[in-house]
Amino acid sequence: MAVVGAGPIGLAIAWRCAARGLRVVVHDPAPGSGASAVAAGMLSPVAEAYFGERQLTALLLASAARWPAFAAELTEATGVEIGYRTEGTLMVGLTGDDLAEARRLWAYQQGLGLPVTPLRPSELRDREPALAPRVRGGALAPTDHQVDPRLLLPALRTAARRAGAVLVPQPVRQLSDVDAHVTVVAAGCGAAALTGLPVRPVKGQILRLRAPDGVAPGFRHVIRGYADGEHVYLVPRAGGEVVLGATVEERSDTTVTAGAVQRLLRAGVDLLPELAEYDLVEAVAGLRPGTPDNAPILGPLPDRPDVLAATGHHRHGIVLTPITADLIADLVLGGVPDPLLTPLRADRFDPAGAAVGGPEPTMEGHLWN
Amino acid sequence: MAVVGAGPIGLAIAWRCAARGLRVVVHDPAPGSGASAVAAGMLSPVAEAYFGERQLTALLLASAARWPAFAAELTEATGVEIGYRTEGTLMVGLTGDDLAEARRLWAYQQGLGLPVTPLRPSELRDREPALAPRVRGGALAPTDHQVDPRLLLPALRTAARRAGAVLVPQPVRQLSDVDAHVTVVAAGCGAAALTGLPVRPVKGQILRLRAPDGVAPGFRHVIRGYADGEHVYLVPRAGGEVVLGATVEERSDTTVTAGAVQRLLRAGVDLLPELAEYDLVEAVAGLRPGTPDNAPILGPLPDRPDVLAATGHHRHGIVLTPITADLIADLVLGGVPDPLLTPLRADRFDPAGAAVGGPEPTMEGHLWN
Repeated sequence: MAVVGAGPIGLAIAWRCAARGLRVVVHDPAPGSGASAVAAGMLSPVAEAYFGERQLTALLLASAARWPAFAAELTEATGVEIGYRTEGTLMVGLTGDDLAEARRLWAYQQGLGLPVTPLRPSELRDREPALAPRVRGGALAPTDHQVDPRLLLPALRTAARRAGAVLVPQPVRQLSDVDAHVTVVAAGCGAAALTGLPVRPVKGQILRLRAPDGVAPGFRHVIRGYADGEHVYLVPRAGGEVVLGATVEERSDTTVTAGAVQRLLRAGVDLLPELAEYDLVEAVAGLRPGTPDNAPILGPLPDRPDVLAATGHHRHGIVLTPITADLIADLVLGGVPDPLLTPLRADRFDPAGAAVGGPEPTMEGHLWN
Repeated sequence: MAVVGAGPIGLAIAWRCAARGLRVVVHDPAPGSGASAVAAGMLSPVAEAYFGERQLTALLLASAARWPAFAAELTEATGVEIGYRTEGTLMVGLTGDDLAEARRLWAYQQGLGLPVTPLRPSELRDREPALAPRVRGGALAPTDHQVDPRLLLPALRTAARRAGAVLVPQPVRQLSDVDAHVTVVAAGCGAAALTGLPVRPVKGQILRLRAPDGVAPGFRHVIRGYADGEHVYLVPRAGGEVVLGATVEERSDTTVTAGAVQRLLRAGVDLLPELAEYDLVEAVAGLRPGTPDNAPILGPLPDRPDVLAATGHHRHGIVLTPITADLIADLVLGGVPDPLLTPLRADRFDPAGAAVGGPEPTMEGHLWN
């Protein structure tokens, strides 16, 4: 089989399939140059459970539940620590208005039965004394964790290689460039040109700061905050790095703009004043592969049952890596799609094609290479 | 003769001396890596005429007056345009408080007889429609110009070389490393270790933005603004670049900090909203060579009449380049210090040494190499 794209999705699929005995070739002229290089690595199905995305939330939760075992297995296979951390996520509101907006969301999340624990201001300060005194209130999502994508990527490369996958640094400009019985297109935004699927770039700008003198940041939790209407997150890493993100822009360029940097920094410093003294070490922009319903596209192309899409992960590529890899590997090896894949089918946007719940394209006879 | 330091000061001295027939060797392991690489290139003796610096202001004015001829001569000698622009400088205040502070300074500058023309809000908008509607008022300093240091440096290198100066990429760790009858120390902050002079690093952080799509910025003047108590300047370049600076910090590191970037960007965007859409292409910090009285140190060391200091230019290195080069070249070639040098003598900080106006150290017999 062939995999197009050596981001976390493509590599995890390659790893899983190769480990189960398939011959796998991964094509990517610039591995890890896509959205994952910019990603913060939050595993936040609870904090990112938004109104109107109930089905997506279920998928995020299912994948996040696989992360502890996935991380352990990956570290065992490679000897590489990937920065998987379980301190949980604090969600905070800076002003009264921010807190009111946050509380609406927390109530929704609690209504879904998700673990969201509102904290009294004193409890919030006990947990993170570095938070600005101005921060009006917060809540804890203890099961929302994090991983470091810049450690994850090389670990997945190593795991895929050790399992027997071959990485080829050549671009795939069209599907006919690939000679395989089954092809998985895990090319992020590049999937649109290869498959015609409605995957569009959604620009995100993100900053990396570093605590002075190389010490660990003065906070332990992932912090997601509303600050004067700006939504930001702050992800602390053991080595002193803090990831501060991110914009969500319907644009396809990757320039870093003065206004976005200013807004991110202002919100970050307002929430955690000590950040003002941190080094600003990186400002970058990446393109997330967005879809019309914000959910990924996983499964065969309507007219090409031998070509499986594994793209459209939008803001959720890291958290969805384990379940995507498992579902696609099961499909490639077993030929029968998991029911979880039904709402993620590639033909769900096709007005002329089968609606969700329609007949599955048959894949028999196309699944081994 | 030897020159230690291939920044604009050292190179301009080398150019002037070599052009007048001296054999000149310039020592610098990393030419142009000092403060000038970070400098904005404002030639602003009027806008930078601050309370209590009357003598320095006179020197800045005298050097700025030499800039048109200096720029023309340099371009003639090298064929290189150095971005010398004469649109003038607008000084503006964002809030009522900012404007009140600015007006105090303008009154002082007008009291010195300097060309500062207060503008009505409508006149301000006529001159720069891109200014934020919130900007409360401004004044024009028509004789404050600008040059691009990143064009100036290579032009000076070319001019010095064409005049016969030799650039040697070796470091000078102590004065005894140099074999010359006269040595000029133009090493910026590095002068302190070489000479014992009270030159200290003053950190400045600065940003470079770029107008989208490579068009010229939407404003023509250098803009110096007070914005909610923050003092910033914005220097537009023909190619679309805008330099936004600068912090003034008593620190010797060159890290870029989140807080400084945020404050610079906020002030810049508040004054010129279109900057929010500009690319942020560079954030850097440099170290200005500061002195106890903010004026440069030009002249022989108290105990080494064969060693001339040309350092301590602090925030004024670019504007002071022509006069520094002329005065030092005259001193090296003529042996008699110009009266302009008297308040800039190297022994003025020495409590045991000669006070300002004391006897000049004799330089005869040491001036040719």
